[in-house]
Amino acid sequence: MFTVTLSSRPIEPPPLADRVEALAAALAATAIERDRAGGHARAERELIRESGLLTLTIPAAFGGDGAPFSTMLRIVRRLAEVDSALAHLLAFHHLQIAGIVLYGTTEQQETLLRGTVTHRWFWGNALNPLDKRAIAVDDREGGYVIEGVKSFSSGSVGSDRITISAWHEATQTALIAALPTDRRGVVVSPDWDAFGQRQTDSGTVSFDRVRVDAHELLQVPGAVATPRATLRSQVAQLILTNLYLGIATGAFEGARRYTLEQTKPWFASGVARAADDPVVQHRYGDLWLHIRPAAVLADEAAALLDAAIARGPSLTAAERGEVAVAGAEAKVLAHRAGLAVTSQLFELTGARSTSERLGLDRFWRNVRVHTLHDPVDYKLRDLGRHRLDGRVPDPTPYS
Amino acid sequence: MFTVTLSSRPIEPPPLADRVEALAAALAATAIERDRAGGHARAERELIRESGLLTLTIPAAFGGDGAPFSTMLRIVRRLAEVDSALAHLLAFHHLQIAGIVLYGTTEQQETLLRGTVTHRWFWGNALNPLDKRAIAVDDREGGYVIEGVKSFSSGSVGSDRITISAWHEATQTALIAALPTDRRGVVVSPDWDAFGQRQTDSGTVSFDRVRVDAHELLQVPGAVATPRATLRSQVAQLILTNLYLGIATGAFEGARRYTLEQTKPWFASGVARAADDPVVQHRYGDLWLHIRPAAVLADEAAALLDAAIARGPSLTAAERGEVAVAGAEAKVLAHRAGLAVTSQLFELTGARSTSERLGLDRFWRNVRVHTLHDPVDYKLRDLGRHRLDGRVPDPTPYS
Amino acid sequence: MFTVTLSSRPIEPPPLADRVEALAAALAATAIERDRAGGHARAERELIRESGLLTLTIPAAFGGDGAPFSTMLRIVRRLAEVDSALAHLLAFHHLQIAGIVLYGTTEQQETLLRGTVTHRWFWGNALNPLDKRAIAVDDREGGYVIEGVKSFSSGSVGSDRITISAWHEATQTALIAALPTDRRGVVVSPDWDAFGQRQTDSGTVSFDRVRVDAHELLQVPGAVATPRATLRSQVAQLILTNLYLGIATGAFEGARRYTLEQTKPWFASGVARAADDPVVQHRYGDLWLHIRPAAVLADEAAALLDAAIARGPSLTAAERGEVAVAGAEAKVLAHRAGLAVTSQLFELTGARSTSERLGLDRFWRNVRVHTLHDPVDYKLRDLGRHRLDGRVPDPTPYS
Amino acid sequence: MFTVTLSSRPIEPPPLADRVEALAAALAATAIERDRAGGHARAERELIRESGLLTLTIPAAFGGDGAPFSTMLRIVRRLAEVDSALAHLLAFHHLQIAGIVLYGTTEQQETLLRGTVTHRWFWGNALNPLDKRAIAVDDREGGYVIEGVKSFSSGSVGSDRITISAWHEATQTALIAALPTDRRGVVVSPDWDAFGQRQTDSGTVSFDRVRVDAHELLQVPGAVATPRATLRSQVAQLILTNLYLGIATGAFEGARRYTLEQTKPWFASGVARAADDPVVQHRYGDLWLHIRPAAVLADEAAALLDAAIARGPSLTAAERGEVAVAGAEAKVLAHRAGLAVTSQLFELTGARSTSERLGLDRFWRNVRVHTLHDPVDYKLRDLGRHRLDGRVPDPTPYS
Repeated sequence: MFTVTLSSRPIEPPPLADRVEALAAALAATAIERDRAGGHARAERELIRESGLLTLTIPAAFGGDGAPFSTMLRIVRRLAEVDSALAHLLAFHHLQIAGIVLYGTTEQQETLLRGTVTHRWFWGNALNPLDKRAIAVDDREGGYVIEGVKSFSSGSVGSDRITISAWHEATQTALIAALPTDRRGVVVSPDWDAFGQRQTDSGTVSFDRVRVDAHELLQVPGAVATPRATLRSQVAQLILTNLYLGIATGAFEGARRYTLEQTKPWFASGVARAADDPVVQHRYGDLWLHIRPAAVLADEAAALLDAAIARGPSLTAAERGEVAVAGAEAKVLAHRAGLAVTSQLFELTGARSTSERLGLDRFWRNVRVHTLHDPVDYKLRDLGRHRLDGRVPDPTPYS
Repeated sequence: MFTVTLSSRPIEPPPLADRVEALAAALAATAIERDRAGGHARAERELIRESGLLTLTIPAAFGGDGAPFSTMLRIVRRLAEVDSALAHLLAFHHLQIAGIVLYGTTEQQETLLRGTVTHRWFWGNALNPLDKRAIAVDDREGGYVIEGVKSFSSGSVGSDRITISAWHEATQTALIAALPTDRRGVVVSPDWDAFGQRQTDSGTVSFDRVRVDAHELLQVPGAVATPRATLRSQVAQLILTNLYLGIATGAFEGARRYTLEQTKPWFASGVARAADDPVVQHRYGDLWLHIRPAAVLADEAAALLDAAIARGPSLTAAERGEVAVAGAEAKVLAHRAGLAVTSQLFELTGARSTSERLGLDRFWRNVRVHTLHDPVDYKLRDLGRHRLDGRVPDPTPYS
Repeated sequence: MFTVTLSSRPIEPPPLADRVEALAAALAATAIERDRAGGHARAERELIRESGLLTLTIPAAFGGDGAPFSTMLRIVRRLAEVDSALAHLLAFHHLQIAGIVLYGTTEQQETLLRGTVTHRWFWGNALNPLDKRAIAVDDREGGYVIEGVKSFSSGSVGSDRITISAWHEATQTALIAALPTDRRGVVVSPDWDAFGQRQTDSGTVSFDRVRVDAHELLQVPGAVATPRATLRSQVAQLILTNLYLGIATGAFEGARRYTLEQTKPWFASGVARAADDPVVQHRYGDLWLHIRPAAVLADEAAALLDAAIARGPSLTAAERGEVAVAGAEAKVLAHRAGLAVTSQLFELTGARSTSERLGLDRFWRNVRVHTLHDPVDYKLRDLGRHRLDGRVPDPTPYS
Repeated sequence: MFTVTLSSRPIEPPPLADRVEALAAALAATAIERDRAGGHARAERELIRESGLLTLTIPAAFGGDGAPFSTMLRIVRRLAEVDSALAHLLAFHHLQIAGIVLYGTTEQQETLLRGTVTHRWFWGNALNPLDKRAIAVDDREGGYVIEGVKSFSSGSVGSDRITISAWHEATQTALIAALPTDRRGVVVSPDWDAFGQRQTDSGTVSFDRVRVDAHELLQVPGAVATPRATLRSQVAQLILTNLYLGIATGAFEGARRYTLEQTKPWFASGVARAADDPVVQHRYGDLWLHIRPAAVLADEAAALLDAAIARGPSLTAAERGEVAVAGAEAKVLAHRAGLAVTSQLFELTGARSTSERLGLDRFWRNVRVHTLHDPVDYKLRDLGRHRLDGRVPDPTPYS
């Protein structure tokens, strides 16, 4: 076979691919029952840690594998086919790594990234600069004291380290810091109770007079983020996109297998096999055309992200905007693909496929919950503005 | 206010409406937790029995309320807004009543319908003439012995009486009979485990040498169903349609309340209230236009059904076909409305609305499971054929 | 056949229906070539005049037929199946009649409506209170002098009488008046050059010091329109809705005939007749489900309009709002049905059906031009607002 | 700006791009009026000839430019933005070149391709192996005599050379040959009268005892086409895809300019500029997401085609199937993009944009006619089959 694999670049040399597949198989074995049970997946987090994937995007200079973020995104997509909650945990670990890469000083990178390699830290997220419920006040000694809460903190439960934001009234800006999760005063409550993405450990982090030292700050109050720093939200957006795509792909594949192996042809169809029903074939073709273009655009956006990160501090706002536009395109398509495939697949598998044993509903529940991270309509607005006036999306935590 | 309520005919005089609303309120109080728990809703079935609604469609001649089936359908739709599983139980009870009205002799009606009034029987379903796994063989004494199973038997668990079908090899047709659920040899297994419509008591009925007497047969082997008798599948189809509509309406109303009371405006929207966001308004308008026409067509089809039933034995195949066409139109629209509203509502309520406490996902799970009863694509095919060639749907258990 | 014709109320007793069908047949005979030629359809306007349909909605008290507006709308829809431009002319004649009924004094009605019966006037439109390019200034003698232009004046070319609006600076409101088209200073330019609805005579009316007497005013400057008066825009909206529906129906029927009579089955379909291809049947079913609900809602809205008009001066704003909501629902559905059917029909008729001889493209061109009267997105916004907050659309010339 | 232009590979070095742009500008200048007039565009065909683009895909070995087919497809797409009929003529010229490259012997290539370079021949199409109305019978002298007709012969009117097919009864297969258009007995009738793509010179070619010599045959009767030879239909399919995309892009760009320069904001929008209306921005974002993924997939499919052609005679059926799958994906998306953008654009430009002067309707007419070449539903079926069973599309003239 000749191979012009434009957008489906292979994930990497065999060793990595093998580790990914082994992890996928291990997660798949228990995914349905863990989805039902919800809660903290301690054992599976350890599987991720043991897979070695936590150091994937850490630059080689700090002891990591130095893989581009696009590689991480492809792995996240693959794992999301079988377990989108655990895939999210791995992805958000790397989002925090991205934050340190993009915001941190070389000293901080040395400490935090090499520390991650050495101590096998699993990072969680407690960062959302638009959330003003956690407040930072200046401490006498050049540091800050933080008080308040941050909910929807993905991966915080069971994490070793977290990245946090807090609102600094004096400057009307947010500070960003990296902390050990067991810092005195930090309490993580496992209160996430959504009907999907149930094992994302998205707890509430509360801060009770938590001290943060100056050297722990990735962004000081009043600092203006560089275009490079604001790439962090593009990493986040592409993580979501690839999670949606992984869910859609997993759902499609689950449906396909069920149709081939289990679905009886409809009595009025005149065919001997459900897969030979023209209406079934037509619908599969249609659903596939939701996934395929979204995947291609996601890969293109990831390549643009890699290039933008490689560009270093000289990245311009316009270049950063190009990444955001490509990311928005891919995200809308992946959002739609996820919802369409996970809901419509049942037209193709039939009534008996709704048994809880099969867990085919978890794809819709997972993608439905996850696609609410930020409104798709505002991505469409951003894209329309861009086409009309050439205006790129304003850098925000969501764009 | 002047009232030209064409399609939203009020459910009936106050007493009935009051009973329906009281029942709806009682079911609503526990619907979310019962959806989570699944299983048999003994107490709630008793609430239905006590509401007096089990005698609604039984002709006055046999002691019932003599309400048209359209009234029952409207009530089922209303109850499905809050609890589509229990609404289904009530509806399928009336489907069995319809079977007796449409197939039964006057003697059978006297026994079975008056018996239902007197003994407050709750009927379940074990009838599907296309399912050949339950076999009837002729008994020496003019009756039959039945052996085999019938799955997906809605309302069978906990029922007093069931209507059954069984395949009769000699004539290559199905017989239909009405039996006490506790007939010797009948075992009802509560094995329904779908991810939605969880309390529909849709168990598997197994028949271990079950004797059926000749007088218990609603349709003898070899009999050709009259157009009137085949209206039963139209009652079934309109029940499904109204269940989908009730679910869609309940979801819409739940979303609306949440948007008004809880949803925060998106930070980039520039409005102070989510309900003032033009995109939110536009989407609500669009979702409403899924529900509204489906409801109007469902009411029209129900009126046609009433008229067809009132027509008695002289109903022609063409007239029956008109009911089927109107029913198919309404069913496709209700199917689509149900799926669209229950999945898209979350774009309008946002991330926090996915908490399991709120149970907003149950609408999608319920409608997704229920809409798989028979494939929507074959309804579209039937409608296309009708428009092209004037051909009405062939009477089957599904059309 | 038993008839429970809920929403498809027959157009009326035979004589009227016959006249309508005769007119439809006459228009159909030349519709394709007149669409190609464009311009003023003098002869066909005379056919309309001779059909007697110009007096349809004029109350019997003034010598008219006293038919409800819903009857006119059904006739407009029927005629639009074959010629939506001429149907528009008839409809907009009745819109001006509606204006006189809703705004005029009894004296004006006596003069203008009875005059229409006696002199067989054909009315055109030059009224749009939001268009401020025609200016009215007070005249010494209690009248006004008007200067400026009004474009998109449907039916103005070749009309006998027109209804006009003009902006009155002093009161910052519009006046409304009824005039003979040949009033000195009025010039109608046949400059309409759209690619659809080509024979709607929608010229530009220019006013060169046109004198209007006080008694000619249907609405004086500064007057606040009553809820009843603002029903005029609902008549206009329902006319548009029925025109879209007529176009959609004509297109559907044209496609159906072509598929049955001309379309060859696709070589890979395995069927002997295009109409037996399951994909073709499915698509016909789907297209039909665009038209059917729109038609039902249009009929409901028309019945509400009739009731609101019958209510007389006591009509409240809330009641008027109900008509507007029902009208908006029907209009969005008809808009979508029109666009979907007229564009997608070709998937069902195939490449050879694009010959200009057949004129099947005129349906899309006609509905595409006509659906731009006012933006559908603002109707959806109105409907969303209504469902969210119970707010009815603000009365405007478009809602 | 950093450039990772994955799928938007620039058309080529400046000289070619300049020639393309010059040709586009020349065609654009008269496109609207020529669309209205229809008929043979003699002068514009000469512009194409003078542009030098007729030798683009001819291998350098025969004196051509040796550009890959993907380059031709991008140029066709670009030209279709302004004139999709003339772009089609250029494209179908290259389709015949492709036929000679894929089917012809080296001697034939030397004669026909070098002849095209030397004599600046413009090729037309009269080839459709499924059309059996032109019959070939064996001639005494080793050649054939052809009798019958071939309609829809794109580019035949005014061509110098044509590629033809004829049905050979004896072998029940088609022969394929290349002929001078002025061969005795060949008559080309300019009878194409579709409402779109009006200047594609798609006449009817009639054959009155036309002699074809053995050396003129590209495929002899009874020959089985190699996988490589069947790539010709993939060239044809990708030409269509790129034409649809060009039309969609031209329509989008035309709408965009009109919205920015002419469209007035809706009175109820509360914004000063139509382009600032959130609903308008949202719709532009949505329409863009029709075009963008289709373009990316079209480029991927073209790259696969180039690779497959470069592979030479060793191309396998499976590899050829990959091209067909990628081509089908792109074609369905381009088909949908074309129809969506060309019809919906008017929601964004408004009523005044329907003036015939602007010619904005020609995009819909052109894409609607052209998308009927072969049914999109069968492409979806092919894609569904492929995903379900791994089966690649059967090579046919359409797949």
